[in-house]
Amino acid sequence: MKIMVINPNSSIAMTEHIAHVLNKIKGCDMELTVTHTPDVPPAIESAYDEALCVPGVLKLIEKANREGYDAAILACFSDPGLEACREISNILVTGIEETSMHVAAMMGAKFSILTMNQERVPAKVREGRRFKLEHSMASARPLGMSVAETDSEPERAREQIMRVARQAVECDGAEVIILGCAGMAGYAEGISEELGITCIDPTSVTLKITEALVAAGVKHAKRGFFATPPSIRRAAVTTKKAAK
Amino acid sequence: MKIMVINPNSSIAMTEHIAHVLNKIKGCDMELTVTHTPDVPPAIESAYDEALCVPGVLKLIEKANREGYDAAILACFSDPGLEACREISNILVTGIEETSMHVAAMMGAKFSILTMNQERVPAKVREGRRFKLEHSMASARPLGMSVAETDSEPERAREQIMRVARQAVECDGAEVIILGCAGMAGYAEGISEELGITCIDPTSVTLKITEALVAAGVKHAKRGFFATPPSIRRAAVTTKKAAK
Amino acid sequence: MKIMVINPNSSIAMTEHIAHVLNKIKGCDMELTVTHTPDVPPAIESAYDEALCVPGVLKLIEKANREGYDAAILACFSDPGLEACREISNILVTGIEETSMHVAAMMGAKFSILTMNQERVPAKVREGRRFKLEHSMASARPLGMSVAETDSEPERAREQIMRVARQAVECDGAEVIILGCAGMAGYAEGISEELGITCIDPTSVTLKITEALVAAGVKHAKRGFFATPPSIRRAAVTTKKAAK
Amino acid sequence: MKIMVINPNSSIAMTEHIAHVLNKIKGCDMELTVTHTPDVPPAIESAYDEALCVPGVLKLIEKANREGYDAAILACFSDPGLEACREISNILVTGIEETSMHVAAMMGAKFSILTMNQERVPAKVREGRRFKLEHSMASARPLGMSVAETDSEPERAREQIMRVARQAVECDGAEVIILGCAGMAGYAEGISEELGITCIDPTSVTLKITEALVAAGVKHAKRGFFATPPSIRRAAVTTKKAAK
Amino acid sequence: MKIMVINPNSSIAMTEHIAHVLNKIKGCDMELTVTHTPDVPPAIESAYDEALCVPGVLKLIEKANREGYDAAILACFSDPGLEACREISNILVTGIEETSMHVAAMMGAKFSILTMNQERVPAKVREGRRFKLEHSMASARPLGMSVAETDSEPERAREQIMRVARQAVECDGAEVIILGCAGMAGYAEGISEELGITCIDPTSVTLKITEALVAAGVKHAKRGFFATPPSIRRAAVTTKKAAK
Amino acid sequence: MKIMVINPNSSIAMTEHIAHVLNKIKGCDMELTVTHTPDVPPAIESAYDEALCVPGVLKLIEKANREGYDAAILACFSDPGLEACREISNILVTGIEETSMHVAAMMGAKFSILTMNQERVPAKVREGRRFKLEHSMASARPLGMSVAETDSEPERAREQIMRVARQAVECDGAEVIILGCAGMAGYAEGISEELGITCIDPTSVTLKITEALVAAGVKHAKRGFFATPPSIRRAAVTTKKAAK
Repeated sequence: MKIMVINPNSSIAMTEHIAHVLNKIKGCDMELTVTHTPDVPPAIESAYDEALCVPGVLKLIEKANREGYDAAILACFSDPGLEACREISNILVTGIEETSMHVAAMMGAKFSILTMNQERVPAKVREGRRFKLEHSMASARPLGMSVAETDSEPERAREQIMRVARQAVECDGAEVIILGCAGMAGYAEGISEELGITCIDPTSVTLKITEALVAAGVKHAKRGFFATPPSIRRAAVTTKKAAK
Repeated sequence: MKIMVINPNSSIAMTEHIAHVLNKIKGCDMELTVTHTPDVPPAIESAYDEALCVPGVLKLIEKANREGYDAAILACFSDPGLEACREISNILVTGIEETSMHVAAMMGAKFSILTMNQERVPAKVREGRRFKLEHSMASARPLGMSVAETDSEPERAREQIMRVARQAVECDGAEVIILGCAGMAGYAEGISEELGITCIDPTSVTLKITEALVAAGVKHAKRGFFATPPSIRRAAVTTKKAAK
Repeated sequence: MKIMVINPNSSIAMTEHIAHVLNKIKGCDMELTVTHTPDVPPAIESAYDEALCVPGVLKLIEKANREGYDAAILACFSDPGLEACREISNILVTGIEETSMHVAAMMGAKFSILTMNQERVPAKVREGRRFKLEHSMASARPLGMSVAETDSEPERAREQIMRVARQAVECDGAEVIILGCAGMAGYAEGISEELGITCIDPTSVTLKITEALVAAGVKHAKRGFFATPPSIRRAAVTTKKAAK
Repeated sequence: MKIMVINPNSSIAMTEHIAHVLNKIKGCDMELTVTHTPDVPPAIESAYDEALCVPGVLKLIEKANREGYDAAILACFSDPGLEACREISNILVTGIEETSMHVAAMMGAKFSILTMNQERVPAKVREGRRFKLEHSMASARPLGMSVAETDSEPERAREQIMRVARQAVECDGAEVIILGCAGMAGYAEGISEELGITCIDPTSVTLKITEALVAAGVKHAKRGFFATPPSIRRAAVTTKKAAK
Repeated sequence: MKIMVINPNSSIAMTEHIAHVLNKIKGCDMELTVTHTPDVPPAIESAYDEALCVPGVLKLIEKANREGYDAAILACFSDPGLEACREISNILVTGIEETSMHVAAMMGAKFSILTMNQERVPAKVREGRRFKLEHSMASARPLGMSVAETDSEPERAREQIMRVARQAVECDGAEVIILGCAGMAGYAEGISEELGITCIDPTSVTLKITEALVAAGVKHAKRGFFATPPSIRRAAVTTKKAAK
Repeated sequence: MKIMVINPNSSIAMTEHIAHVLNKIKGCDMELTVTHTPDVPPAIESAYDEALCVPGVLKLIEKANREGYDAAILACFSDPGLEACREISNILVTGIEETSMHVAAMMGAKFSILTMNQERVPAKVREGRRFKLEHSMASARPLGMSVAETDSEPERAREQIMRVARQAVECDGAEVIILGCAGMAGYAEGISEELGITCIDPTSVTLKITEALVAAGVKHAKRGFFATPPSIRRAAVTTKKAAK
């Protein structure tokens, strides 16, 4: 099994971090490639950043299709361009946001998403609707720290993540917490234990779920919502004709 | 990894069939037990049948917890007693209905469930609400054949499954079909190819997803909705005291 | 008119309490039987407890059908097995939870449910969805006292019920309060007066509504959702044939 | 017990018909008054007609309050002015539309409303939302006959009601049918039997439910949504002062 | 272009205020008439007040149709009788509540409505459902001042509006504030600037939107929901015949 | 007033067509610029096409901000990148899809969208959810003709549009039809008249609504959902510092 994990931004440090974490948990017979999108912003903090990254992500999806991968994973917690990726892909494409929200919806009555700052909260609420899981979503709550800060002050980060997770549990009724940003990776286990709830690290869970879907032979439907774009189909026909 | 698959009814033939199918796809390092509930109806065709089966299912969940299993799977497409099972279980419990609905919701715009007969349709619609996935559900459609008939007339079964799946796709906008009954197992691949959509066999998909969740260290939250029942907690306290 | 009220747990004290309350308000021409389920837990505090009680409840429903009752009422505020009961019953079956939620939805903009402890809150929220009344439900709030405590400390119980009801009114916008547990019976009138809202005691209201439905000749539909289970139909056919 | 039933239009024939039907089923100790609104249209077929009738209805509600009634019932299947009536009433006010929709929601998976003509269908759908019961509503379907026609051709009316009810059951999944117009009164029993579903005559059911609510001491909350209008409160204060 | 703005209550002061505000922003080629409903309450603070005002509003709509207006606007923030007005009108009718809610839904993630007092909150929430915009509505919050008080104490009004708007933004996630009462007119700009959100004055926005719809040739559909009432159609036929 | 209309694809013919139509209806004091996005696909028929076009659209939005425009309009019926545009824009940005859906929701009970082909239907349904208007949406229906075909066979296009619009009205209950593709421009008036409903041409309506919003001083909130991206804010700070 061969899976490509795409970091949609251009940060090499984050790409290496993802590779480090996933290599520890990947299936034994699995070939894992973690890559990033060149010439785009080093972080995705807005719909604007997403828009700039997606064309590069699409090229990587085409590459994954050409080079015989079994699946590709979007490893940014807003699944930028997921629908477009599926349109042009004949192999399974998953996103860490969609996948972890669905897992979270199964593991408790309601889930909450921890995001970096207050301004991203309405976007996270909207994502709940994007994936039609708004009835399973308790809230989105901001951490109030930047990725740089969580990196440089891990102890304060741990405390702050715990404080906000506890608010989600006690005020919003969350029973599952999704750590909705790379800066929070690695804190899941501590939260689960201390609060007696389930805490989800999106990238890890999504890798295992993607492996499972590939093993079960399940991929996204190529009719309707994720149908191959007419422009691609026309190009394919032209290429075929030219080849004759 | 050690997983117990529970057939909630008393049919030995169906239990063996499930074991046969799952043993072909289970992970190489995985110990799989497929068992059934004794002294209950041989098939589950109503809420009444479910109610009679659940107490026996709960005993098997207790056994799975005692005997060091990593997870248990309810292998009947109505997930009878799933909430009660999770309340009394410290290991992950999954249901083939909930799990396959969530996978289906990711693989296309909307999914439809094929069920055995017309009378089960409102129950399937209700299950969509039970798992808060009603916005991803296109419809439930009846096959109009009994399990006995699908067994004895496989060719007619294949044709009928294809006909009903096509109606779900063309009339209801389904892009994913869930084969919501044991009698339909084995037809998924044919449907996917012919209709250009995704067809899900719940038991197989759920086994792989459950393996993935165990590997990722994810289980249901034990706070709130799935909290251990007070009666069990009190009994545990009593037992502990008596042991002193 | 002949109505059977079923206490789904095995507590004789609670059964007698229900009988005492209902006998004071029952219609003059009405024959009332209040009974309980033997060999089950003495209280229902979880989905697990419900699952253990339902088979016994179903036997009482069969008895009510055999013995010429006009209706049966499930007198536990989670309506355990209501759907299964209706499947096997040709006489009307009502539940105190479903009935009081519908009455509450008519009597004000939104209603809140008072339940015993924090852990039952997500179950109560789910019940709102079970009966498709989530848009009329403001909240579920825990009393934070056990039934034993409300029994032994009635004055503290009164104060605590008032405090929590007031929170539901002032914080959640409730205009109707449902006293969602036997331990709160008898406090409705005081709350209505002091808070200027409507407070509902589920068992009393459900008895009167059930009498009204019997008088109006209304019972649940026996097609689709509450259709007689195939196993029961087959047994009936067998019995008839044997009788010939 | 003393109940006033208000026919919001000016048709004396319809008022007498309602009185005739209700007198047969009213509780033995109950004093029933059926009245109508003078100087308004003889039928309510639009929001415009409703608007013209409501001021007269409000005067009758004031009368019912002054004259010691226990409850008032709006006997037109659009509950014109129900919210305004409750604002100015200290006694219970019910509407036959709201009440029968709630009863219908309990008696089967989904209900459909039969209305007179195609143009009223969107209004009926909206009423489902008004009472927050849209998730229990399967459809609204037009009879395609006027009240005059159902009166003069009862046999054709019976056939047409049966035909449309059957469509609601078979195409929309209805298990309960509400006869949403006076012209259909009297056909409920036949439909229930022939289609194996539950058919509701709104006026009869609402009378019995209203009797039940009065007996149980339940009325609408006078806080928030149905609070007494400030203009009425000010007038009351002025009157009191003047009286001193 | 000729537009009639209808103040549904009888307050001449408010009518003049509306005229003053709108005349400053109306299109240069536009003939504007601001009028009020005679013989009705001077303020609309309840469903009861609305019911009393609507018959007079309907007469003004008829007048606007007869006298060649291009559109009519209901200038009371509950759009009393909007549906009935559209039924009898062949020219466009808009309401300031519906229009400003739709504009608000476009301008940010969620909007909140400021209303005069606590008791109107559930009515405003209901209006969100009336216009099917409940998913865009964050909350309704009361100002806690009467119109008289906002008039006499403008500085306190400004502070209180700011305080409540800030709560809506910070506690409920509102990004758009609708000033849902005439007493708050004139404060929009200050709020927008200080809170960095969008604040909407319903009457002004609705005038411009209505001008735009007239210019684009858009009016409400006269089929189904807003179809001409049968009584009006019959009267028209009779009139025509008589004229022959 | 100065408005920039952006055709997100690279088709010069379509850009000229839009300019031609809008110049006829634009306000007399209004300076209108219609432009397109260079180096992108000539048509947008998929999420993939949208993703490729958005970066160019964003550059035009920046230009509109720099050059003193009052508003910008996205003139493609999927509003590609609308959220990202608003994030980076201090002037109002509107989309023809969002705007026409909101207008449609006001003009009748439900609206339907006509789109080019069957495969776009799920995307249109999703757009209804994107703008939180799913409860006002009756359906999306495909025309089954390409833009090229509607151009070359206008008479067949007219007939086909009428046929599909009629299906939406008669089968789905639509009272408003949105012509959701440039190829259908110009047919609105005929449909309105023949079917007695309201038919909306998105580009024209959106121009007038946008003029109205600018005149009323309303623009999108710059807090939360549409907040300026951190990367832009940081760049602005850097620029400022450098300038010192």
